This record gives sequence, C-alpha cells and structure tokens, in this order.
Amino acid sequence: MAFGWIDEQARLRRRAGLVRTLRPRAADTPLLDLASNDYLGLARHPEVVEGAARAARTWGGGATGSRLVTGSTELHAELERELADFCGFEAALVFSSGYAANLAAVTALAPHGSLIVSDAGNHASLIDGCRLARGTTRIAAHADPDAVGKALSGHDGPAIAVSDTVFSVDGDAAPLAGLVAACREYGAGLVADDAHGLGVLGEGGRGAPHAAGLAGADDVVVTVTLSKSLGSQGGAVLGPARVVEHLVNAARTFIFDTGLAPAAAGAALAALRLLRREPERAARAGAVARELHTRLTALGLEGVRPDAAVVSVRAPSPEQAVRWAADCRAAGLSVGCFRPPSVPDGISRLRLTARADLSGAEIDRAVQVIGETRP
Amino acid sequence: MAFGWIDEQARLRRRAGLVRTLRPRAADTPLLDLASNDYLGLARHPEVVEGAARAARTWGGGATGSRLVTGSTELHAELERELADFCGFEAALVFSSGYAANLAAVTALAPHGSLIVSDAGNHASLIDGCRLARGTTRIAAHADPDAVGKALSGHDGPAIAVSDTVFSVDGDAAPLAGLVAACREYGAGLVADDAHGLGVLGEGGRGAPHAAGLAGADDVVVTVTLSKSLGSQGGAVLGPARVVEHLVNAARTFIFDTGLAPAAAGAALAALRLLRREPERAARAGAVARELHTRLTALGLEGVRPDAAVVSVRAPSPEQAVRWAADCRAAGLSVGCFRPPSVPDGISRLRLTARADLSGAEIDRAVQVIGETRP
Ligand SMILES: Cc1ncc(COP(=O)(O)O)c(C=O)c1O
Ligand SMILES: Cc1ncc(COP(=O)(O)O)c(C=O)c1O
Repeated sequence: MAFGWIDEQARLRRRAGLVRTLRPRAADTPLLDLASNDYLGLARHPEVVEGAARAARTWGGGATGSRLVTGSTELHAELERELADFCGFEAALVFSSGYAANLAAVTALAPHGSLIVSDAGNHASLIDGCRLARGTTRIAAHADPDAVGKALSGHDGPAIAVSDTVFSVDGDAAPLAGLVAACREYGAGLVADDAHGLGVLGEGGRGAPHAAGLAGADDVVVTVTLSKSLGSQGGAVLGPARVVEHLVNAARTFIFDTGLAPAAAGAALAALRLLRREPERAARAGAVARELHTRLTALGLEGVRPDAAVVSVRAPSPEQAVRWAADCRAAGLSVGCFRPPSVPDGISRLRLTARADLSGAEIDRAVQVIGETRP
Repeated sequence: MAFGWIDEQARLRRRAGLVRTLRPRAADTPLLDLASNDYLGLARHPEVVEGAARAARTWGGGATGSRLVTGSTELHAELERELADFCGFEAALVFSSGYAANLAAVTALAPHGSLIVSDAGNHASLIDGCRLARGTTRIAAHADPDAVGKALSGHDGPAIAVSDTVFSVDGDAAPLAGLVAACREYGAGLVADDAHGLGVLGEGGRGAPHAAGLAGADDVVVTVTLSKSLGSQGGAVLGPARVVEHLVNAARTFIFDTGLAPAAAGAALAALRLLRREPERAARAGAVARELHTRLTALGLEGVRPDAAVVSVRAPSPEQAVRWAADCRAAGLSVGCFRPPSVPDGISRLRLTARADLSGAEIDRAVQVIGETRP
C-alpha cells in the first residue's frame, strides 16, 4: 500500500521510545509555564491581544495574497519600519514565519557558485535554507570563528557565514564579534538568526547583533521571529535596503507565500511598542534565566550557562528526560523536553525558558519541582 | 563588499523591466479587487474577523512555541477536526502556512530512496519540497497522467506523485482521476495541493479531491491553505491518521516551527463554519470565474478556461502585462500580473480572481476596464 512504509518507521519510533504526540492545551491551565518562548510574557498582554484584534477588524482575517500582489498593507510597512528602527538596521521585510524568513535569507544570499559556512548547531530552518540554496554548504564546528575562517578561505565568489545568535537547544550565544571578523577577512557576509536574542539581549532587547555593535553594518543580515519575545507569529529579515530589495525580488518564500496575517502583524507591533516603553523586561528575562541556572546547578544539575533566556538541563537518557518532564508536569510545571532526533548532539535535555514576568515565588516553585523530580 | 554582487543582479533586473516593488495598501481602498485570493469574500466578513479577535483574546497573540511544546491549543485541535471532517479525511494537521504544509508533506513522504514525480506546473512550495526531500524527483509534463505513470514505472520503493489540484497561474485543474489511477498502478501515493480548490470546487467547497471521489482514500494526502478561500493564514495536511502521525514525528516545518497564531486559527475556523452554512458561496465563485472568462474571450482576449476561481488572460509581453495591470489600477481595478521569473512557461498574464461576492455591476465594470485598457 502506498504509505505502508510509514508503519515500519512508526514501529521503530515506538520501540526507541521516541514517539511524539500532540497535547492540545486549554486556554486556562494551572500549569506554571517554563516551556514556551514567550520570554517577555507578552503573548497574553492586553495591549498585544488588542493589537491583534484591532488589526483583524481593520484589515481582515488574512492578508489575501502574496506581499507582491494584495498582501502588503500599511500595517506591514509600519511594522517593518519600526522593527528596522528598533534593531538599528536600514530596512526590514516581514514574512509569515521565522522559518520562512530564514529560508529566504539563506537561499537568496547564496546563489549558484557561492559558499555558505553554517554552524553545526544551527536551527532546522537555517539548515533547510542551506539545503535549498544553490550555493555549496560547509558545516563549521559549533561557535568557532576560526573554523568559519578556515572554511571561508580560498573560496572565490559570494560567501556567507550563517549562525544562530543564541542556540535554541542549549541557550549559548554565538561569538558574533569573532564571526564577523572572520567574515570580513574573506569578504563574506554574516547572516545571524536572532530568534532567541531579540527582546532579551542588547540595549532594551534590541538583540544580539545590536549588542555586538553590528547594527546597520552593510555586511550583516539579521533574521528574527515575531513568535517568541514578541508573542505573535511571523518573521523578518533586517539589513541593508539593497538586501531587502533583493529578497523582494528573489526570495521564493516571500514571493510565493501569502503575507503575514494582519492580526499577527498587529500583535507584534503592539509588543514591540510595549518593549520600547518597558525596556527593563529584556534584562529581567536574562536575569531570571541566570538565576534558574545558578540554583539548578547548586542542586548538582548540569547545563550550559545561559546567555539569553533559554536554560538547558541535561538528562541522563531520552527515556528519563521524557519521564522527568512528565513528572514536572504532574507537579504543575510545564517544561520542554528536547531529545533525539531534534538535538544536534544526541543529548537529551529539559529545556526551560525564563520569562520576564516570572515572580520570585514562581522561580522557587520551578526550582523545587525540577529538583524533586530529577531522575 | 560582502553583498556587492546583489547590485549587479539589481541592474540586470532593472534593464529587463522585471523589478518588483511593494505597494502597501490602505485599509479602505476604492479599488475593485480582482487580485486577491479571497475567493469567497470572507477575509473581511464580520464573523471571520470576530473569530480572529475572539481567539486572540482567549488564547493570546501567538501560540508561544512549537506545536510539540506549548503551541498546540484546543483551538488548533478543533480546527483540525472540522477541516478533516469537512473535506472527508480521517485527520488533519495545521501549519503556520500553506507553504510550510507543502514542504512538510513532500519531505516527510519522500524519504531516502523514494521517488517523487512532480507536475511541471506545480507551485513553488511543492517544488521547494521536492528539492528539500531526500527522495529523487522526476518532473512530469503538465497535467499528464501518462507521463506520471511512465515516470513511476520501474521504481522500487516508496513513491509519490505531487500536483496542484488547480494550478495557480492559469487556473486549470489537474486530471486527478487519471493521476490517482496512474499512482495506483504503481503503488504510489498521491499528494494533491488543493490551495485553490478548497472552498471553490466540490460539494459546498469541499475541494477538488472530494469532487474526484478521493476523500478519505488511504493513498491520497491533500494539502490546503487557510489563506485563500478561508480568508486567514496557515495551511493544513489532510489524510489518513497514520500519515498525520508520521508528519508530527518527521516533518521539520512542523516540529521546528511555532504553531499557527490563535487569531489565524480562529479566523479560518469561523470561515469554515460560514462556508458550511452558506455552501452556495463555493459554486458562485466558480460561476463568476466562468462568466469573466466567457466575456473576456468574447472581447477577443485569450486565456485558459477556468476550472475554479482563477482566471488568466494572456498579455503580449512582460512590459505590456505590467502596463496593462497599471492601467487597470488607474481605472480603479486591481488585478494580478504574473510574469517571468514567476511563471513556469515564460508567458506573462493578467491574473484575475473571481470572488463569490462580486456583484453583476462589479463584473461588468471589471470586464469593461480590462477590455478598454488592453494593449
Ligand atoms: C533559532 C530559531 N530560528 C528560527 C525559528 C523559526 O521561527 P518561527 O517559529 O517563528 O517560524 C526558531 C523557532 O521556532 C528558532 O528557534
Ligand atoms: C498552489 C499553492 N500552494 C501553496 C501556496 C502557499 O500557501 P500560503 O500562501 O498559505 O503559504 C500557494 C499560494 O500562496 C499556492 O498558490
């Protein structure tokens, strides 16, 4: 039968204890959330919610077409201006998701004959971008500017290095200054995915590239998502106006995709304005992450020191990671569980996310539950 | 300089008259819209807009994480159940876009060693799915079941044929019955992208696969988008429960992407319920398309007879297509303009879309403007 081969894969997954199932949540859950990427606690903020509702009322439920046909509204343009301005770049282009933004940036900036040097720990969307691009990809060792320089050396023609700014699994930061130095030595561009940096790192949450002094550089392109700190959906590419113009003309996930829904653009714009008004939210998210890490480490648990709001805690095995997360849940705490094949190094972890709006009592409770349920 | 090579491409584009620029629209435009994919006129329907606003209020501005972590809400599950039920499939899985749904379906159903036979006129998202998949792709002549059968013959291992049900450029329908017969002869599965069929074709808008008697078949997988007839954003894969389970475990654009924003899910669900209540909208969109085609043909214009709501009209050259669309616009009519490199055959066209809510007077006006501005 046509899809019969799927059953064998399912059997293997079951035997390996690696089956994933969906668990739809209710609107009001008593669980303490340390699993979402809502780092600033804005997804349910009344202003963000009203930003979504107002945009839907003004513009409708959808953008109704590609951004190049009927899908560009003044709301998209406003969001693009404010995002570019906030992060310090000349221009921005909004996509339906961060995933689509990454596919666009990598494919459009790596034409036939070009070289892409991609960090071994990069997010799936960057990896898929490399696989779709016409250029050749070389994988560089994780967070290693020397490895990037070596991979770039000797290549003739356009080249980019591609890296998460904050790696999604362990929460460690990329060595941006070193990366851009390696790129500049070889005339390459840097594409940095600031999905987990925007809203958390840099002055008032302006992101990791801003913190590294790279905002507005003519050889740096930044991608962000609107779905984490900004509590919405969507993504954007920030960079020189000529790069954004190029994407408008060349990026398939821009040209052939329906524009971001007005409600998502409206929610992200409201969140961005809130963050401008309450810049202390950014620092608070990072401080909560460091506190979680310090206190969990004091309990003898192991994890990488967090550079942003993602806190990872190692688990001895995939099975124990799953059981640990389930036990946390049973005790009222929602945590993420990353395990093969979704981790680059095969190591299973609990993945906790700090939120700017976690109270001291909530942090206490989280630390206690994680400690008491440890395998 | 790192991105200097872009300028040369921009120069070539300018010289060829193929520069694309964004034209953000205002919320209230006096233009008559024959360019959006809002086939049923639902994007701004009060119930759809309220569906978006209510969902944002209940669930927040974003899904806050991957569907596998915190991003699955009961709203997503409800939408999946109702979509599957409406289209007649066992299960459905919702994605952040139709693009992402297509990448997921093709990559997850075409593992290493498998064969993909892809129609030459397929949408960019299906093509990118083929390029990302581990299987080998063979391109089959447009809308040609014999070519698909020939391409499938002799292959050993999993195989799928992949086709739009309604091709996005010319609006012609795929020969679904022939395609599935060719697939069955060789034990292959059929992946059909019903982006432009859902809401327009089949009983009450249940889509092209439903109309072809393929709903619920265990060897057919259908992808849809929520961004056209349903006036929202997002996409879905419909098929046997085992296929949906497989996607949950294997599709990278599902696992590593933030869940669809609640407002988009809410808008799509409201639109789906409206369509169930007012099934005549589906037939009306098709009837408007055929009327447009008949009347434009009577003026001596050329185009493919529309099988759904997309109406294409040939233009003599890319420049004339651009000027024609601009002249329509100046006369108060918004139409799409497709030209290289976004058309598979290099032929430029005006692309009109019929809407169920176009009045007789609006159709008259559209036909008149298009006729008067013809090159
Ligand atoms: C580093 C990184 N980049 C990109 C994405 C994709 O963004 P989105 O979920 O908004 O599509 C994610 C997570 O989802 C991510 O963690
Ligand atoms: C045939 C077809 N498939 C898929 C898509 C992608 O869907 P979406 O825009 O919802 O991502 C489109 C149009 O955008 C399309 O025309």
